[in-house]
Amino acid sequence: MSAKVRLYVEHPLGAGQSVPLDRDQAHYLFGVMRLTVGAQVALFNGQDGEWTCDVAEAGKRAGLLTCVEQAKPLQTPPDLWLMFAPIKKARTDFIVEKATEMGAAKILPVQTEFTNSERIRQDRLQAHAVEAAEQCGGTYVPEVQELQKLARVLDHWPQDRQLMFCDEAEVGNALALAADTHRSAPWAILIGPEGGFSDGERKRLHGFAQSHVVSLGPRILRADTAAVAALTLWQTALGDW
Amino acid sequence: MSAKVRLYVEHPLGAGQSVPLDRDQAHYLFGVMRLTVGAQVALFNGQDGEWTCDVAEAGKRAGLLTCVEQAKPLQTPPDLWLMFAPIKKARTDFIVEKATEMGAAKILPVQTEFTNSERIRQDRLQAHAVEAAEQCGGTYVPEVQELQKLARVLDHWPQDRQLMFCDEAEVGNALALAADTHRSAPWAILIGPEGGFSDGERKRLHGFAQSHVVSLGPRILRADTAAVAALTLWQTALGDW
Repeated sequence: MSAKVRLYVEHPLGAGQSVPLDRDQAHYLFGVMRLTVGAQVALFNGQDGEWTCDVAEAGKRAGLLTCVEQAKPLQTPPDLWLMFAPIKKARTDFIVEKATEMGAAKILPVQTEFTNSERIRQDRLQAHAVEAAEQCGGTYVPEVQELQKLARVLDHWPQDRQLMFCDEAEVGNALALAADTHRSAPWAILIGPEGGFSDGERKRLHGFAQSHVVSLGPRILRADTAAVAALTLWQTALGDW
Repeated sequence: MSAKVRLYVEHPLGAGQSVPLDRDQAHYLFGVMRLTVGAQVALFNGQDGEWTCDVAEAGKRAGLLTCVEQAKPLQTPPDLWLMFAPIKKARTDFIVEKATEMGAAKILPVQTEFTNSERIRQDRLQAHAVEAAEQCGGTYVPEVQELQKLARVLDHWPQDRQLMFCDEAEVGNALALAADTHRSAPWAILIGPEGGFSDGERKRLHGFAQSHVVSLGPRILRADTAAVAALTLWQTALGDW
């Protein structure tokens, strides 16, 4: 990776395209990073890959970049959802950051029966996903959804989407087996909440035809650790690692 | 896991054994958690497993517990070192916490040529390992070593210890192959520093007979994410998962 500044923008990118910067972006590039006209910046928008751009105008509150050439094509991650029950603020932020680095396509905060947190700041979490994508060299930003009740998500579960269900009460790993039959299917990972699943939730999840139960070892993992461990197992067995 | 308070103590544990509490522990159990005489606490010391203990005396600055029965035998993790270059404070704390949860036996902060941080607070990191062991239900606390130069660690490398070397410049995974021939060997995982390895370090590590190069996917992972991902791969291929 070059040491170049990487920035996510919500603007089309293409040869010769001009990209206006908003106030925060101009402040970051010209105030914090001290870039001047002629400097190069890497831009991506989640759709057109990564583009090398020149600084054409640099102001305190605005700026303009010009796209020169595509440096990387768009690399979309596998069609994988990460579902987790929000926990304390800093650790929820970490889960979103890590899910982005590890290559989840969509992030679904879900409220289980034993979830303590009843609210999330979706906009703040989405901004964390953007920052993580800028940092990890990715060209794709996963969408962070609003908090939903797990029961409701399961009510509308897509029939073809397989579910890797991480239950600390279980042993064994059904993933290797599932990898043979469901390699090209869409998937989701569900991380257990800190208070564990309720008996009703566990029963329902075990009854799901799409469920594949996976144990994450003999120690109890915090939710943020469990998210990275589960994503590693999935990416190695079925994903793009 | 029961909701019982778990506490690490530096004192022998065994049937009928009395365990005195220091001021911080007494404050936590009786001030914060509001336990009274007769309440049950889970103690472990990294050697004698987990013991269920009764509160015999509860004071503001001291207290006494009595061991009743062993609840879990000692579960030592596999003989696995986690080596990493310290980064920003919060993320270094996270790496120690996660290495404990994931079951590393020893944690070695190493200074590489491109490591920015030249000091660590070993005592603070060791306290994080203790807290993580209390939290994750483990009966073992990994030792956190003082910061050492990577070159010096490699100079004295034990001949039988295999090395899982996580290099973002590589592709492929030599671990499955190594699992057959080195299953019962002691191991170490080396996570690349945020600035990458120097050419000299990379050359030396590739030349090591004990080295097994492993890629952690197509995106660039932060060091704390890489630590959990690497530990997951190792524990699944060679460890106690």
